[in-house]
This record gives sequence, C-alpha cells and structure tokens, in this order.
Amino acid sequence: MTAKPATHRAIDVHTHVVPGRFPAYTGRTARDLWPSMADAPNCHRHVMLKGSIYRTVPHSCWDCAARAADMPAMQVGRQVLSPMPELLSYWLPADDGQAMCRFLNETIAEFTASDPTRFTGLGAVPLQDVDAAIAELHHAIDALHLAGVEIGTNINGTVIGDASFEPFFAAAEALGAAVFVHPLRPSGLDRVVGPAMLEQVLAFPGETGLAAASLITGGTLARHPRLRIAFSHGGGSLQALLPRLQHGWHAFSKLREAVAQEPAAAARTMFYDSLVYDAAALKRVVDVFGDTQVMVGSDYPFAILDKDPTAGIRALDCDDAARERLLWRNASRWLGKADE
Amino acid sequence: MTAKPATHRAIDVHTHVVPGRFPAYTGRTARDLWPSMADAPNCHRHVMLKGSIYRTVPHSCWDCAARAADMPAMQVGRQVLSPMPELLSYWLPADDGQAMCRFLNETIAEFTASDPTRFTGLGAVPLQDVDAAIAELHHAIDALHLAGVEIGTNINGTVIGDASFEPFFAAAEALGAAVFVHPLRPSGLDRVVGPAMLEQVLAFPGETGLAAASLITGGTLARHPRLRIAFSHGGGSLQALLPRLQHGWHAFSKLREAVAQEPAAAARTMFYDSLVYDAAALKRVVDVFGDTQVMVGSDYPFAILDKDPTAGIRALDCDDAARERLLWRNASRWLGKADE
Repeated sequence: MTAKPATHRAIDVHTHVVPGRFPAYTGRTARDLWPSMADAPNCHRHVMLKGSIYRTVPHSCWDCAARAADMPAMQVGRQVLSPMPELLSYWLPADDGQAMCRFLNETIAEFTASDPTRFTGLGAVPLQDVDAAIAELHHAIDALHLAGVEIGTNINGTVIGDASFEPFFAAAEALGAAVFVHPLRPSGLDRVVGPAMLEQVLAFPGETGLAAASLITGGTLARHPRLRIAFSHGGGSLQALLPRLQHGWHAFSKLREAVAQEPAAAARTMFYDSLVYDAAALKRVVDVFGDTQVMVGSDYPFAILDKDPTAGIRALDCDDAARERLLWRNASRWLGKADE
Repeated sequence: MTAKPATHRAIDVHTHVVPGRFPAYTGRTARDLWPSMADAPNCHRHVMLKGSIYRTVPHSCWDCAARAADMPAMQVGRQVLSPMPELLSYWLPADDGQAMCRFLNETIAEFTASDPTRFTGLGAVPLQDVDAAIAELHHAIDALHLAGVEIGTNINGTVIGDASFEPFFAAAEALGAAVFVHPLRPSGLDRVVGPAMLEQVLAFPGETGLAAASLITGGTLARHPRLRIAFSHGGGSLQALLPRLQHGWHAFSKLREAVAQEPAAAARTMFYDSLVYDAAALKRVVDVFGDTQVMVGSDYPFAILDKDPTAGIRALDCDDAARERLLWRNASRWLGKADE
C-alpha cells in the first residue's frame, strides 16, 4: 500500500461555471440566441434560450463559496473553472459572440479573484471570427490574468484541426495559454437512438476523439510543439481510434507524407482529463497517453459529474510520483504554473 | 508457456469478397450507381462506380484458390466471406438493390460451395426496403445456405437501432442467421482533416460504436435475446462509450426507464472481431466484452488488413480454453455451428 495521497492538492481541471445573471442583449439580430436567467426552485436557475429552458443549473455554478464548500468532500484542492459549453456562443454574430465572451471572461476573472487559492480560470473566445478570438485571448490572458480558454471541438461544424484556426493556435502557443477542448453540438447525433440526454452521454466521446485526432492529422500539433492543449472526458474515443490511425500511418505512405508526426507520439503531447467513470477505462487512458498527460476531471457541478473524481487515480496501480503527477503536477504543467 | 495454439482451426470472421464481374445493369434509373469491373495491372481489377474507380482490388477478392493459398501464412483455417461493404447498395432503388443482393448472395454461395471446408458465407439484404430484406434473408439462409448476412451500420443515414429495422432483426433472430455489422458511409466525416483514406481509418470506429450502442439504447437486443450479432473492428469506439453510458444509466432514472438492459451487460451479449491492430487495445476489447464474445478478424484482402490476425490472441495473457474460444469457438457459436 502506498501512503495516503495528498488529494488536498488535487486539481480538478474539468468544472463549469454559469454567471448568476446575464446582461441584457444589446445586439440587433440574435435576441433569441442570447441567454437569460429565470429563477427555479431550490436555489437553482433556468438558463433560458430561444424562449425555453435550455438547462436548469444549481447555484454552485456562480456561487464560489458553495463551490469551495463542496471541494473537501470531492478531495479536490483547486478547481479550474470553464464556461458551460453552450455559452461559447459560436452561433451568435461575431460582435455578439465577442460581447458574450468578454462578459464570461470578466465573470470568471471575478470568480477566481474571489478565492485565488482555490480557483483558476479559463475563459472563452469568439472563434466564429478568428481575429476577434485572438484579440479576446490576449485580453483574457494579459488583462484578466486567466490561465487560458475553453474551446469547443468544432466551431459551427468546422472541426478545430481545420486550417482556418491555425492563427488562433499560434497565438495560444505564443501567449502560453492553456487550451481546454470540450465537446459541443456533436457529430453523430443522427446515429443515436433514445432519450435526448444521450447526446451528451453517447455522442460527446466520439466528437472529442475526432477533434483530438484532427490536431494530429491536420498538423496543428506538429506546427505548435509548445501548445498546451487538453481534452475533456479522457479524450473521448481517441484511445480507441489511435491504434488504427497508428496502423494506417505505418501501412500507407500517403498517410505518412500527409501527417508529419507518428500519431501515437503526437497524442502523448496532449493532455486529457480522467473523466471516464470506470477504473479499467482510466487505466486504458493512462496507458495510452502516459501518466504525464492525464489530470483529474469531474464535470462539477452538472448532473453527470463524477462525485469522487480522484478515486480512480487513488486506486490506480502506479507509484507515488506518478500519482502526484496525475493528481496535480500534470495540471500545473498544463496550466503553465510553476509546479507548486 | 501454453502449448502452441491450434491456429489452423482459427476462424477469420472479417474477410471481404468482390465478384469477379458484375452483371449488366437491367434497371431503369440508377445506371451510374451500378458497379462494373475494369481490368487493372497485376491481376487486380477496378471496381467502377459513377464512371470512375471506386477501389482497385486484388484477384483474391473473387479467386477462392488464391484465398485458400493465403490462409496458412495467416494461420487461419476458415474465412467468413462477406461483401465489400460498398456493394450493399442501400442507395439504389429497392428493386435494383434486391437484384444486387441476390447476385452477391448467389456468388458468395458459389464461393463457399467451391471449398466448404475453408469458407463460410454471409450475404447481403436490401435494407432500404425492410420487407424485401426479410424475403432476401429467407432466400439466403433457406435456399442458398449462407450462415447469415452482413449489414451496414446505417441504411442511408438511419442507424440500425432505429425502430424501422425491428422486423428485420426479428426475422434474423427467428431464422438463426448470424449478422455481421460493418461501418459504411460513416458519420463524423466532417470532423476529419487530412487524406481521404482517413474516412476508413478515423471515422469507421466511431460509426461502429454508435451503431452498436443504438442496439442497446433502442432496445433491439432486449427484444431479441437470441439474436447473434457481431461488430467489426472490435466494436470500434463502443468500449470507450460504454463506461459513460453505464454511468449515465445508473445516474439518471430517465435513462433506466428508456433502456431496459444494463448497458455493460447488454454489450456482452454481442460479438466483436479482434481487428484493433494493437495488443493493449485487444486486451481492452476482451476485458470489456468478455473472452466469450471476441473473434478473429483481419479485413483480408484489403490494404488495411492485419496480416497476422491471430497474433494478438496468441500473445494474450489467458488460459488455453479462453484462447480456443477467441480463435474459433466464439465464431462457431456466432455462426450457429456446432462447436467443431
């Protein structure tokens, strides 16, 4: 048996926030797509979109004292805060998207400033306009002192490995901004049969895996070796895609000519959270990507969260140094912090 | 060390055939979508579709003596023959699709009759017309003595777990026909960046995983407990989706109400081939689905094939009885044969 791991230092890189209220819409053409809040029972609020309830969320989305109170039981010492993905607002006109991202970034900066020992902030950028996204990234890092940004796996259907996003990743690399990729409006929905919640349950992992693979096959990672980029949900299906991609890369010269890096090695330059809900699945993620690349993730405070997000890492058959990496050192490195 | 496994009994459930020639088109409206053959160098032929080369294939696609000659080096004693998936022809008018399936089924029956000690045949059914598919299934099993059929993961975009295919699965269960599911025109293509061959390399696994999941969440497996259905490519991403689906099923009562079977248990009633190109990935597939459900698969004779398809199973850390199951007994059970 190893000594009790110091989980009070654990960094949960996958937690979401929602502002307590949204400003009134000041744009011209997209009023229906701009969120607002309506009160709901039990300290919850409804996020309203298009005149109906998009999701009912608990007050811990915006109440940082409530978050802090939940952290000891989750054995987490620090939360990385990122927007509820639907707020990334890529489908808004660019100026409205920029306004929403600015509001989110200022809100998240306030949250982190309220308790910097517990919270690290990731903002949002309006990637429907790459130049505006780069400007907002500078503001988020330089003026608001966020650690980086959350982005979707796709921007209005265009996967992040597409060449059009190249300037954004160049800027993120140059600024040293951590990038957290979260699935959003996933592909494959037309292959899902059953209740609507299966969108998140079944379609998110494949969407995430393909987005991660696109950074390999599109060359983003090869062009930006210092980019620090992380994928939610253990990289989704990437661990299942990778051996086939690796085989194809070795078997077909056309693929080697088109893809500069060996896929398995490229995959081990990205970061992944541990949110796979199962000890054997977590072992698979750590084996494939390396114990230097996996970090704690919980999806707090949403309903699908892993209530004990360090349990899998605590139980993993590895040495203490690897466990410390998985619990917090990898996250510190991804966030660009000195190893605390 | 275990004794040398008797790989001469191994059954490769994932091999494809293409007829040496196609009959002339006799329909009225879809001449461009009907395949024809053109000679190519080195005993290859071009499968022509829409006036251009769809794929150039080797003569082992239709030359059973050539196939038989390749089997000893692959350490395979029996091949299960199924159509090159693009020939399933779901996009043809139903009568043309029926004609193509009948031609394929008769061709595959001839192949298997030419060497019944080495070949078992799976046919095709025109699922764009479920009634016609059921009629063709009866013909394939009762008149042509095929062991079952290959189907796509989707039929013109509708995933196989959709309720519209319920009568087909009822018929397959009643007839005792083995069903082999292969990805085809996959979802997620718009998330792939890079050479066209990445369609098969990257998009096939996610398509396969979602199709398999749809039989769980749509209730097909619960309604047809005696259905013997297998998925190619180790079930694709299903092993990565399953822990999250299992978590969601336990966490959300709505999901339990909608999905009769515990997902992890339901997944272990289906069969999967071993075609994942990697020892650790194969171990993951066997661990998740069970050593009673995995079978040898190679993708012979296509370029992406695993040239040594039993190597992973031979090297797997398991006992002799499990290895025999993986090499041939599971395949015999799936095919509905007495355990030879």
